Amino acid sequence: MSDSTTSNFAPTEKTRVRRKPERANYDRRLIYSILDEAFVCVGDKLFLHGSTASRLMKTLATGAPFCLNVTLLDGIVCAPSATGHSVNYRSVMVMGKAEIVEGEAAKLAAMRDFVEYVIRGRWTTVLPPTEQELKGTMVLAVPLVEASAKVRTGFAVNEGNDYVAPAWTGVIPMKWVAEPPVADPRGNPCVAPPANIQHYSRPQ
Amino acid sequence: MSDSTTSNFAPTEKTRVRRKPERANYDRRLIYSILDEAFVCVGDKLFLHGSTASRLMKTLATGAPFCLNVTLLDGIVCAPSATGHSVNYRSVMVMGKAEIVEGEAAKLAAMRDFVEYVIRGRWTTVLPPTEQELKGTMVLAVPLVEASAKVRTGFAVNEGNDYVAPAWTGVIPMKWVAEPPVADPRGNPCVAPPANIQHYSRPQ
Repeated sequence: MSDSTTSNFAPTEKTRVRRKPERANYDRRLIYSILDEAFVCVGDKLFLHGSTASRLMKTLATGAPFCLNVTLLDGIVCAPSATGHSVNYRSVMVMGKAEIVEGEAAKLAAMRDFVEYVIRGRWTTVLPPTEQELKGTMVLAVPLVEASAKVRTGFAVNEGNDYVAPAWTGVIPMKWVAEPPVADPRGNPCVAPPANIQHYSRPQ
Repeated sequence: MSDSTTSNFAPTEKTRVRRKPERANYDRRLIYSILDEAFVCVGDKLFLHGSTASRLMKTLATGAPFCLNVTLLDGIVCAPSATGHSVNYRSVMVMGKAEIVEGEAAKLAAMRDFVEYVIRGRWTTVLPPTEQELKGTMVLAVPLVEASAKVRTGFAVNEGNDYVAPAWTGVIPMKWVAEPPVADPRGNPCVAPPANIQHYSRPQ
Protein backbone atom coordinates (compact mmCIF):
# COMPACT_ATOMS: atom_id res chain seq x y z
CA MET A 1 0.00 0.00 0.00
CA SER A 2 1.26 3.47 -0.82
CA ASP A 3 0.32 6.04 1.76
CA SER A 4 -0.15 9.47 0.35
CA THR A 5 0.46 11.10 3.70
CA THR A 6 2.78 10.36 6.55
CA SER A 7 0.91 12.23 9.29
CA ASN A 8 -0.38 10.06 12.09
CA PHE A 9 -4.02 9.67 13.06
CA ALA A 10 -5.24 11.99 15.79
CA PRO A 11 -6.96 9.95 18.49
CA THR A 12 -10.63 11.00 18.72
CA GLU A 13 -13.28 10.40 21.37
CA LYS A 14 -14.21 7.23 19.48
CA THR A 15 -10.79 5.87 18.58
CA ARG A 16 -8.72 6.71 21.67
CA VAL A 17 -7.75 3.40 23.28
CA ARG A 18 -8.96 3.35 26.90
CA ARG A 19 -8.31 -0.22 28.09
CA LYS A 20 -4.55 -0.95 28.16
CA PRO A 21 -3.71 2.45 26.62
CA GLU A 22 -0.02 1.48 26.65
CA ARG A 23 -0.85 -0.79 23.72
CA ALA A 24 -2.32 2.07 21.67
CA ASN A 25 -0.71 3.27 18.46
CA TYR A 26 -1.88 5.95 16.06
CA ASP A 27 0.93 5.57 13.55
CA ARG A 28 -0.40 5.75 10.00
CA ARG A 29 2.16 3.34 8.54
CA LEU A 30 1.47 0.72 11.22
CA ILE A 31 -2.30 1.04 10.79
CA TYR A 32 -2.01 0.73 7.01
CA SER A 33 0.30 -2.28 7.29
CA ILE A 34 -2.18 -4.14 9.51
CA LEU A 35 -5.14 -3.38 7.23
CA ASP A 36 -2.97 -4.36 4.28
CA GLU A 37 -1.94 -7.73 5.71
CA ALA A 38 -5.56 -8.48 6.62
CA PHE A 39 -6.55 -7.56 3.10
CA VAL A 40 -9.16 -4.89 3.52
CA CYS A 41 -7.48 -1.71 2.38
CA VAL A 42 -6.23 -0.02 -0.80
CA GLY A 43 -4.42 3.30 -0.64
CA ASP A 44 -5.95 5.84 1.72
CA LYS A 45 -9.40 4.42 1.35
CA LEU A 46 -11.04 1.29 2.49
CA PHE A 47 -13.15 -0.26 -0.25
CA LEU A 48 -16.10 -2.54 0.33
CA HIS A 49 -17.92 -4.39 -2.38
CA GLY A 50 -20.97 -6.57 -2.35
CA SER A 51 -24.17 -7.42 -4.09
CA THR A 52 -26.61 -4.54 -4.57
CA ALA A 53 -29.11 -6.94 -2.94
CA SER A 54 -27.06 -7.17 0.27
CA ARG A 55 -28.75 -5.69 3.32
CA LEU A 56 -25.38 -4.69 4.81
CA MET A 57 -24.34 -2.86 1.64
CA LYS A 58 -27.71 -1.12 1.39
CA THR A 59 -27.48 0.04 5.02
CA LEU A 60 -23.91 1.29 4.65
CA ALA A 61 -24.84 3.06 1.42
CA THR A 62 -27.20 5.31 3.38
CA GLY A 63 -24.13 6.76 5.11
CA ALA A 64 -24.83 5.02 8.42
CA PRO A 65 -21.79 5.33 10.71
CA PHE A 66 -19.99 2.04 11.16
CA CYS A 67 -17.01 0.48 12.81
CA LEU A 68 -14.61 -1.99 11.22
CA ASN A 69 -12.17 -4.08 13.24
CA VAL A 70 -9.26 -6.16 12.09
CA THR A 71 -7.14 -8.34 14.37
CA LEU A 72 -4.07 -10.32 13.36
CA LEU A 73 -3.31 -12.92 16.00
CA ASP A 74 0.48 -13.17 16.21
CA GLY A 75 0.97 -15.58 19.08
CA ILE A 76 -0.10 -17.24 22.31
CA VAL A 77 1.75 -15.97 25.37
CA CYS A 78 2.45 -18.76 27.88
CA ALA A 79 2.93 -17.24 31.33
CA PRO A 80 3.93 -18.94 34.60
CA SER A 81 0.51 -18.02 36.09
CA ALA A 82 -2.99 -18.80 34.76
CA THR A 83 -4.13 -15.19 34.48
CA GLY A 84 -0.78 -14.06 33.08
CA HIS A 85 -1.56 -15.81 29.78
CA SER A 86 -2.27 -13.54 26.88
CA VAL A 87 -2.09 -13.23 23.11
CA ASN A 88 0.13 -11.12 20.92
CA TYR A 89 -1.85 -9.30 18.27
CA ARG A 90 -2.02 -6.29 15.99
CA SER A 91 -5.49 -4.81 15.69
CA VAL A 92 -7.04 -1.78 14.02
CA MET A 93 -10.36 -0.06 14.55
CA VAL A 94 -11.73 2.22 11.85
CA MET A 95 -14.80 4.43 12.43
CA GLY A 96 -16.35 5.88 9.35
CA LYS A 97 -19.10 6.47 6.89
CA ALA A 98 -19.14 4.92 3.45
CA GLU A 99 -19.53 6.78 0.17
CA ILE A 100 -20.99 5.07 -2.89
CA VAL A 101 -18.53 4.81 -5.77
CA GLU A 102 -20.67 5.98 -8.70
CA GLY A 103 -20.08 5.63 -12.43
CA GLU A 104 -18.94 2.65 -14.44
CA ALA A 105 -15.33 3.81 -14.85
CA ALA A 106 -14.81 4.52 -11.13
CA LYS A 107 -16.44 1.22 -10.14
CA LEU A 108 -14.34 -0.69 -12.64
CA ALA A 109 -11.15 0.99 -11.37
CA ALA A 110 -12.02 0.07 -7.77
CA MET A 111 -12.71 -3.55 -8.76
CA ARG A 112 -9.42 -3.71 -10.66
CA ASP A 113 -7.55 -2.29 -7.66
CA PHE A 114 -9.19 -4.86 -5.42
CA VAL A 115 -8.28 -7.85 -7.64
CA GLU A 116 -4.70 -6.55 -8.04
CA TYR A 117 -4.49 -6.00 -4.31
CA VAL A 118 -5.42 -9.62 -3.57
CA ILE A 119 -3.29 -11.11 -6.38
CA ARG A 120 -0.92 -8.77 -8.18
CA GLY A 121 -0.92 -9.09 -11.99
CA ARG A 122 -4.22 -10.95 -12.09
CA TRP A 123 -6.54 -8.34 -13.60
CA THR A 124 -5.24 -8.52 -17.18
CA THR A 125 -5.45 -12.33 -17.23
CA VAL A 126 -9.13 -12.64 -16.27
CA LEU A 127 -12.40 -11.72 -17.98
CA PRO A 128 -13.44 -8.18 -16.98
CA PRO A 129 -16.83 -7.63 -15.31
CA THR A 130 -19.74 -7.62 -17.73
CA GLU A 131 -22.12 -4.67 -17.75
CA GLN A 132 -24.61 -6.75 -15.79
CA GLU A 133 -22.01 -7.71 -13.19
CA LEU A 134 -21.02 -4.07 -12.80
CA LYS A 135 -24.68 -3.14 -12.26
CA GLY A 136 -25.13 -5.90 -9.70
CA THR A 137 -22.11 -4.88 -7.64
CA MET A 138 -22.09 -2.02 -5.19
CA VAL A 139 -18.73 -0.46 -4.37
CA LEU A 140 -18.37 1.69 -1.26
CA ALA A 141 -15.35 3.74 -0.22
CA VAL A 142 -14.57 4.71 3.36
CA PRO A 143 -12.00 7.53 3.71
CA LEU A 144 -9.59 6.61 6.49
CA VAL A 145 -10.07 9.51 8.90
CA GLU A 146 -10.70 8.01 12.34
CA ALA A 147 -8.56 4.97 13.11
CA SER A 148 -6.41 3.56 15.86
CA ALA A 149 -4.30 0.47 16.42
CA LYS A 150 -3.72 -1.69 19.47
CA VAL A 151 -0.73 -3.99 19.59
CA ARG A 152 0.74 -6.49 22.05
CA THR A 153 4.17 -8.03 21.56
CA GLY A 154 6.65 -9.94 23.70
CA PHE A 155 6.59 -12.34 26.62
CA ALA A 156 4.56 -12.56 29.82
CA VAL A 157 4.77 -9.60 32.21
CA ASN A 158 4.70 -11.65 35.42
CA GLU A 159 6.81 -10.90 38.46
CA GLY A 160 10.14 -12.74 38.56
CA ASN A 161 8.94 -14.79 41.56
CA ASP A 162 6.17 -16.37 39.47
CA TYR A 163 8.77 -18.18 37.36
CA VAL A 164 9.14 -20.81 40.10
CA ALA A 165 6.09 -22.52 38.49
CA PRO A 166 7.00 -25.74 36.64
CA ALA A 167 5.35 -24.57 33.39
CA TRP A 168 7.24 -23.96 30.16
CA THR A 169 7.03 -20.22 29.46
CA GLY A 170 7.34 -18.36 26.19
CA VAL A 171 5.42 -17.50 23.06
CA ILE A 172 3.87 -19.78 20.43
CA PRO A 173 4.04 -17.63 17.27
CA MET A 174 0.98 -17.97 15.02
CA LYS A 175 0.84 -17.19 11.33
CA TRP A 176 -1.69 -17.16 8.56
CA VAL A 177 -0.09 -18.96 5.61
CA ALA A 178 -0.92 -20.16 2.13
CA GLU A 179 -0.42 -23.75 1.09
CA PRO A 180 0.46 -24.89 -2.44
CA PRO A 181 -2.34 -23.95 -4.87
CA VAL A 182 -4.81 -26.58 -6.09
CA ALA A 183 -5.68 -26.36 -9.79
CA ASP A 184 -9.28 -26.18 -10.96
CA PRO A 185 -9.89 -29.37 -13.02
CA ARG A 186 -11.78 -27.23 -15.55
CA GLY A 187 -8.78 -24.92 -16.05
CA ASN A 188 -6.18 -25.06 -18.81
CA PRO A 189 -3.55 -27.61 -17.64
CA CYS A 190 -0.88 -25.76 -19.66
CA VAL A 191 -1.24 -22.59 -17.55
CA ALA A 192 1.07 -22.80 -14.54
CA PRO A 193 0.34 -20.67 -11.45
CA PRO A 194 2.54 -17.54 -11.40
CA ALA A 195 5.11 -17.19 -8.60
CA ASN A 196 2.88 -15.05 -6.34
CA ILE A 197 0.16 -17.71 -6.48
CA GLN A 198 2.61 -20.61 -6.15
CA HIS A 199 4.00 -18.94 -3.00
CA TYR A 200 1.19 -16.68 -1.92
CA SER A 201 1.80 -14.19 0.90
CA ARG A 202 0.46 -10.91 2.28
CA PRO A 203 1.06 -8.16 1.42
CA GLN A 204 1.34 -8.86 -2.29
CA MET B 1 -15.25 -30.24 22.35
CA SER B 2 -17.78 -32.74 23.62
CA ASP B 3 -21.30 -31.93 22.56
CA SER B 4 -23.92 -33.03 25.01
CA THR B 5 -26.60 -33.08 22.34
CA THR B 6 -26.63 -34.08 18.71
CA SER B 7 -29.76 -32.20 17.64
CA ASN B 8 -29.18 -29.49 15.09
CA PHE B 9 -29.93 -25.82 15.59
CA ALA B 10 -33.33 -24.64 14.41
CA PRO B 11 -32.92 -21.62 12.15
CA THR B 12 -34.65 -18.60 13.73
CA GLU B 13 -35.66 -15.22 12.32
CA LYS B 14 -32.25 -13.94 13.40
CA THR B 15 -30.02 -16.84 12.37
CA ARG B 16 -31.61 -18.02 9.13
CA VAL B 17 -29.09 -17.34 6.35
CA ARG B 18 -30.74 -15.13 3.70
CA ARG B 19 -27.88 -14.20 1.35
CA LYS B 20 -26.54 -17.31 -0.45
CA PRO B 21 -28.82 -19.64 1.56
CA GLU B 22 -27.28 -22.62 -0.25
CA ARG B 23 -24.22 -22.04 1.93
CA ALA B 24 -26.24 -22.27 5.17
CA ASN B 25 -25.73 -25.06 7.64
CA TYR B 26 -27.39 -25.63 11.02
CA ASP B 27 -25.51 -28.78 11.93
CA ARG B 28 -24.49 -28.71 15.60
CA ARG B 29 -21.27 -30.67 15.11
CA LEU B 30 -20.12 -28.40 12.28
CA ILE B 31 -20.95 -25.24 14.26
CA TYR B 32 -19.10 -26.55 17.32
CA SER B 33 -16.08 -27.56 15.24
CA ILE B 34 -15.77 -24.06 13.75
CA LEU B 35 -16.10 -22.35 17.15
CA ASP B 36 -13.63 -24.86 18.52
CA GLU B 37 -10.99 -24.26 15.85
CA ALA B 38 -11.37 -20.50 16.28
CA PHE B 39 -10.97 -20.98 19.99
CA VAL B 40 -14.02 -19.38 21.49
CA CYS B 41 -16.09 -22.26 22.76
CA VAL B 42 -16.09 -24.89 25.52
CA GLY B 43 -18.76 -27.54 25.68
CA ASP B 44 -22.29 -26.28 25.01
CA LYS B 45 -21.52 -22.83 26.28
CA LEU B 46 -19.48 -20.01 25.01
CA PHE B 47 -17.38 -18.44 27.77
CA LEU B 48 -16.13 -14.89 27.74
CA HIS B 49 -13.74 -13.46 30.26
CA GLY B 50 -12.37 -10.02 30.80
CA SER B 51 -11.53 -7.39 33.33
CA THR B 52 -14.36 -6.28 35.60
CA ALA B 53 -13.33 -2.77 34.45
CA SER B 54 -14.03 -3.57 30.78
CA ARG B 55 -16.90 -1.62 29.27
CA LEU B 56 -17.75 -4.50 26.94
CA MET B 57 -17.93 -6.99 29.82
CA LYS B 58 -20.04 -4.60 31.91
CA THR B 59 -22.48 -4.11 29.04
CA LEU B 60 -22.77 -7.81 28.30
CA ALA B 61 -23.23 -8.53 32.01
CA THR B 62 -26.50 -6.55 31.94
CA GLY B 63 -27.91 -9.25 29.66
CA ALA B 64 -27.81 -7.05 26.55
CA PRO B 65 -28.43 -9.20 23.45
CA PHE B 66 -25.32 -9.60 21.35
CA CYS B 67 -24.03 -11.28 18.25
CA LEU B 68 -20.72 -13.10 17.91
CA ASN B 69 -19.20 -14.00 14.56
CA VAL B 70 -16.32 -16.28 13.74
CA THR B 71 -14.90 -16.78 10.27
CA LEU B 72 -12.14 -19.20 9.31
CA LEU B 73 -10.71 -18.23 5.94
CA ASP B 74 -9.88 -21.47 4.16
CA GLY B 75 -8.76 -20.27 0.75
CA ILE B 76 -8.77 -17.80 -2.11
CA VAL B 77 -10.79 -18.95 -5.12
CA CYS B 78 -9.15 -17.91 -8.40
CA ALA B 79 -11.80 -17.78 -11.13
CA PRO B 80 -11.40 -17.13 -14.86
CA SER B 81 -13.46 -13.91 -14.52
CA ALA B 82 -12.89 -10.94 -12.19
CA THR B 83 -16.24 -11.17 -10.40
CA GLY B 84 -16.05 -14.96 -10.20
CA HIS B 85 -13.31 -14.69 -7.56
CA SER B 86 -14.33 -15.68 -4.08
CA VAL B 87 -13.06 -17.07 -0.80
CA ASN B 88 -13.64 -20.40 0.85
CA TYR B 89 -14.60 -20.02 4.48
CA ARG B 90 -16.41 -21.53 7.42
CA SER B 91 -18.28 -19.00 9.54
CA VAL B 92 -20.61 -19.10 12.51
CA MET B 93 -22.99 -16.53 13.91
CA VAL B 94 -24.22 -16.85 17.49
CA MET B 95 -27.01 -14.65 18.86
CA GLY B 96 -27.38 -14.66 22.59
CA LYS B 97 -27.43 -13.13 26.01
CA ALA B 98 -24.66 -13.62 28.53
CA GLU B 99 -25.08 -14.85 32.08
CA ILE B 100 -22.59 -13.92 34.78
CA VAL B 101 -20.75 -16.91 36.22
CA GLU B 102 -21.03 -16.26 39.96
CA GLY B 103 -19.10 -17.78 42.86
CA GLU B 104 -15.41 -18.44 43.24
CA ALA B 105 -15.61 -22.17 42.50
CA ALA B 106 -17.63 -21.77 39.28
CA LYS B 107 -15.39 -18.94 38.08
CA LEU B 108 -12.27 -20.95 38.83
CA ALA B 109 -13.69 -23.97 36.96
CA ALA B 110 -14.46 -21.80 33.91
CA MET B 111 -10.97 -20.32 33.96
CA ARG B 112 -9.44 -23.78 34.23
CA ASP B 113 -11.55 -25.02 31.33
CA PHE B 114 -10.46 -22.05 29.26
CA VAL B 115 -6.74 -22.55 29.92
CA GLU B 116 -7.05 -26.30 29.23
CA TYR B 117 -8.99 -25.56 26.08
CA VAL B 118 -6.22 -23.34 24.71
CA ILE B 119 -3.35 -25.62 25.83
CA ARG B 120 -4.29 -29.02 27.16
CA GLY B 121 -2.48 -30.05 30.35
CA ARG B 122 -1.37 -26.55 31.21
CA TRP B 123 -3.54 -25.76 34.24
CA THR B 124 -1.71 -27.94 36.75
CA THR B 125 1.69 -26.54 35.72
CA VAL B 126 0.89 -22.85 36.27
CA LEU B 127 0.14 -20.73 39.33
CA PRO B 128 -3.65 -20.64 39.97
CA PRO B 129 -5.44 -17.28 40.04
CA THR B 130 -5.03 -15.38 43.30
CA GLU B 131 -8.12 -14.22 45.16
CA GLN B 132 -7.52 -10.71 43.84
CA GLU B 133 -7.20 -11.96 40.25
CA LEU B 134 -10.44 -13.90 40.62
CA LYS B 135 -12.19 -10.78 41.91
CA GLY B 136 -10.83 -8.70 39.03
CA THR B 137 -11.99 -11.12 36.34
CA MET B 138 -15.53 -11.32 35.08
CA VAL B 139 -16.62 -14.60 33.50
CA LEU B 140 -19.72 -14.69 31.31
CA ALA B 141 -21.41 -17.75 29.83
CA VAL B 142 -23.57 -17.69 26.71
CA PRO B 143 -25.74 -20.79 26.23
CA LEU B 144 -25.58 -21.83 22.57
CA VAL B 145 -29.23 -21.60 21.58
CA GLU B 146 -29.40 -19.51 18.40
CA ALA B 147 -26.60 -20.21 15.96
CA SER B 148 -26.01 -20.84 12.28
CA ALA B 149 -23.07 -21.57 10.02
CA LYS B 150 -22.25 -20.47 6.49
CA VAL B 151 -19.67 -22.36 4.49
CA ARG B 152 -18.14 -22.12 1.02
CA THR B 153 -15.91 -24.83 -0.41
CA GLY B 154 -14.60 -25.79 -3.82
CA PHE B 155 -13.62 -24.07 -7.05
CA ALA B 156 -15.10 -21.22 -9.07
CA VAL B 157 -18.66 -21.63 -10.32
CA ASN B 158 -18.12 -19.94 -13.69
CA GLU B 159 -19.60 -21.14 -16.94
CA GLY B 160 -17.37 -23.49 -18.91
CA ASN B 161 -16.96 -20.84 -21.66
CA ASP B 162 -15.23 -18.48 -19.22
CA TYR B 163 -12.26 -20.87 -18.98
CA VAL B 164 -10.92 -19.52 -22.27
CA ALA B 165 -9.34 -16.72 -20.19
CA PRO B 166 -5.54 -17.06 -19.93
CA ALA B 167 -5.59 -16.95 -16.10
CA TRP B 168 -4.50 -19.81 -13.87
CA THR B 169 -7.61 -21.06 -12.06
CA GLY B 170 -7.91 -22.93 -8.80
CA VAL B 171 -7.80 -22.44 -5.05
CA ILE B 172 -4.98 -21.11 -2.85
CA PRO B 173 -5.61 -22.91 0.46
CA MET B 174 -4.99 -20.75 3.54
CA LYS B 175 -4.23 -21.98 7.03
CA TRP B 176 -3.63 -20.55 10.46
CA VAL B 177 -0.54 -22.30 11.81
CA ALA B 178 1.78 -22.23 14.79
CA GLU B 179 5.52 -21.84 14.38
CA PRO B 180 8.14 -23.32 16.74
CA PRO B 181 7.73 -21.84 20.25
CA VAL B 182 10.12 -19.14 21.49
CA ALA B 183 11.23 -19.56 25.11
CA ASP B 184 10.86 -16.72 27.62
CA PRO B 185 14.43 -15.78 28.67
CA ARG B 186 13.18 -15.52 32.28
CA GLY B 187 11.88 -19.12 32.21
CA ASN B 188 13.61 -22.23 33.52
CA PRO B 189 15.92 -23.42 30.68
CA CYS B 190 15.57 -27.02 31.90
CA VAL B 191 11.80 -27.10 31.19
CA ALA B 192 11.22 -28.19 27.59
CA PRO B 193 7.93 -27.30 25.87
CA PRO B 194 5.50 -30.27 25.89
CA ALA B 195 4.56 -31.83 22.55
CA ASN B 196 1.32 -29.84 22.14
CA ILE B 197 3.26 -26.58 22.54
CA GLN B 198 6.18 -27.74 20.39
CA HIS B 199 3.68 -28.59 17.62
CA TYR B 200 0.68 -26.47 18.50
CA SER B 201 -2.56 -26.98 16.57
CA ARG B 202 -6.32 -26.41 16.88
CA PRO B 203 -8.31 -28.11 18.25
CA GLN B 204 -6.15 -29.25 21.13
